[in-house]
Amino acid sequence: MTQMDSAGKTRKATIKDVAARAGVSPSAVSIALHDRPGVSASTKERILRAARELGWRPNLAAASLSGRAVHTVGLAIARPARLLGLEPFYMEFISGIESVLSRRSCSLLLRVIEADEEIDVHREWWQGGRVNGSILVDLEVDDPRIPALAEIGLPAVVVGHPSLAGPFASVWTDDAAAVAEAVRYLAALGHRRIGRVGGPERLGHSAIRTAAFDEVIAELGLEGRTAVADFSPDQGARACRSLLLAPDRPTAIIFDNDIMAVAALGVADEFGLSVPEDLSVIAWDDSQLCQLTRPTLSAMRHDVYSFGADVTTALFQVMSGEGRPSRPTQPPVLTPRASTAPPRR
Amino acid sequence: MTQMDSAGKTRKATIKDVAARAGVSPSAVSIALHDRPGVSASTKERILRAARELGWRPNLAAASLSGRAVHTVGLAIARPARLLGLEPFYMEFISGIESVLSRRSCSLLLRVIEADEEIDVHREWWQGGRVNGSILVDLEVDDPRIPALAEIGLPAVVVGHPSLAGPFASVWTDDAAAVAEAVRYLAALGHRRIGRVGGPERLGHSAIRTAAFDEVIAELGLEGRTAVADFSPDQGARACRSLLLAPDRPTAIIFDNDIMAVAALGVADEFGLSVPEDLSVIAWDDSQLCQLTRPTLSAMRHDVYSFGADVTTALFQVMSGEGRPSRPTQPPVLTPRASTAPPRR
Repeated sequence: MTQMDSAGKTRKATIKDVAARAGVSPSAVSIALHDRPGVSASTKERILRAARELGWRPNLAAASLSGRAVHTVGLAIARPARLLGLEPFYMEFISGIESVLSRRSCSLLLRVIEADEEIDVHREWWQGGRVNGSILVDLEVDDPRIPALAEIGLPAVVVGHPSLAGPFASVWTDDAAAVAEAVRYLAALGHRRIGRVGGPERLGHSAIRTAAFDEVIAELGLEGRTAVADFSPDQGARACRSLLLAPDRPTAIIFDNDIMAVAALGVADEFGLSVPEDLSVIAWDDSQLCQLTRPTLSAMRHDVYSFGADVTTALFQVMSGEGRPSRPTQPPVLTPRASTAPPRR
Repeated sequence: MTQMDSAGKTRKATIKDVAARAGVSPSAVSIALHDRPGVSASTKERILRAARELGWRPNLAAASLSGRAVHTVGLAIARPARLLGLEPFYMEFISGIESVLSRRSCSLLLRVIEADEEIDVHREWWQGGRVNGSILVDLEVDDPRIPALAEIGLPAVVVGHPSLAGPFASVWTDDAAAVAEAVRYLAALGHRRIGRVGGPERLGHSAIRTAAFDEVIAELGLEGRTAVADFSPDQGARACRSLLLAPDRPTAIIFDNDIMAVAALGVADEFGLSVPEDLSVIAWDDSQLCQLTRPTLSAMRHDVYSFGADVTTALFQVMSGEGRPSRPTQPPVLTPRASTAPPRR
């Protein structure tokens, strides 16, 4: 069941190994194993023999995709249900997932959970034959889901940087480059004191953004400070207040999602600060919210719908045994609007 | 398997009939059938005999709820995936569904479909044991799903007026009363020409709102006109333009969701009309969008999250055989903000 790769590590045989041994293409292996027309009886026999010799057989997921089972992808989200309805990110992400699933007549099994339930939920879904594979989101640093779900052989794609994904395929945005771009833009406008309202540090992408923020702040010789919140408008407003209460308050703040940035416009009002004259604001994700506020919000624009679609396309590759297709999705793009300007002198 | 009710119609025996025949409470029936401790052996025997005599047995869904099966609720939505991500209604509705499901460790099976696929999807889910029951949304006038899904015995709750729901339980908002309230409010402000941008007329709730709108307009001796759109910002803007291009343009417009009302603010700008001085705008559903625009949008406020929760609670009653709990949810409430005012003289 295992092979040695060039680095000398053992790994599971893949469909490519079977194809190489049988002297055919991977798609011929797939055709043979799924009993579809297109290969001769003798070729099919050779392929099945190669698979047996390598100890390889199509996993449950691949079998399912051939029409014998559930056609379902699992997604568990550990956020309060009420917050989920306010957060444009997840609805756009789910819409992107559905755009790929619906073309393949597949469904999404969605569950809102407590963080510590997720391993059990995916295990139950996978071992109970309820899903063909899962999408793992909100990865933490040293996430316990990774070893636990790798062990049960769950076909999955991690939404997050490969450094967080263990043996799983991952699809990610280059958060470090994006946060550096936001800081450099504000520095170019003349800002010297830059705040950031980030997500919880236990989340992998928050930690990556914080490290990148600190690095570019140091490189440019600026003053920077990150306050932590949980992506909700209330905590975003509180974190924004804590930055503005500092003796040397920042003249610009970067927010890790857009609803916290929207909430910050209200906080600026409370403090009698004009946006962008007294305070520049940059949002993240850039849902339609950013264009509806006055002033409109400058943002790190991110096509969340396409991100969801990319993740799901990668998962189908995993589920059909076509390897471990890790790749970055389109990077967030700085989109200046009316909430950023040079600081008052 | 059938009983006569007081109106002389045949109907399936329910858990209440079994309880009455055995002389116990419905919860005792549930306990006995699920083999849980709490009833004596002789009572249990009496209950099982009553159930047999009435030809009743717990349906698949109820059996599942006792811990033997899938714990999943199905929802199929016939909207383009991209639009779904822009529409706050569905994400809040799904969040409300999840708030009830997550308390019961249940999952939502979600699928974005073409309208004509829905009967097949629910049939496949139910007969394949993939769901314990389903939520049916976007009911049409004489909806073909109703007879087809009633025939296969799918436990379901219809989101919509009982007149659309056939034999299914339904949870609905009183759309007729709400649209009448919106028109009366505008009339009280002095508006005589009132427009409305409604959803597609094939949808049951659109037809109900249109009929109520026409009725109250006639009753008050006003001029009223409805333009039809599909809930998207683009079509909402187009319908709004068509109303404003009329020789005697309306001085107020009611929109059937909130993203079309947001789009209307841009159209008013195009026409050089000030909101609310030249044009009053009332939105529907009232997501957070309505409070983020300038001016803020007056709206028929509707707690969509609680609506989703109410529907799901009713579905659990249906799935556990506790009858057909149809009920209205909280009615939409007129919430005046900055987008409505008396018309210019």
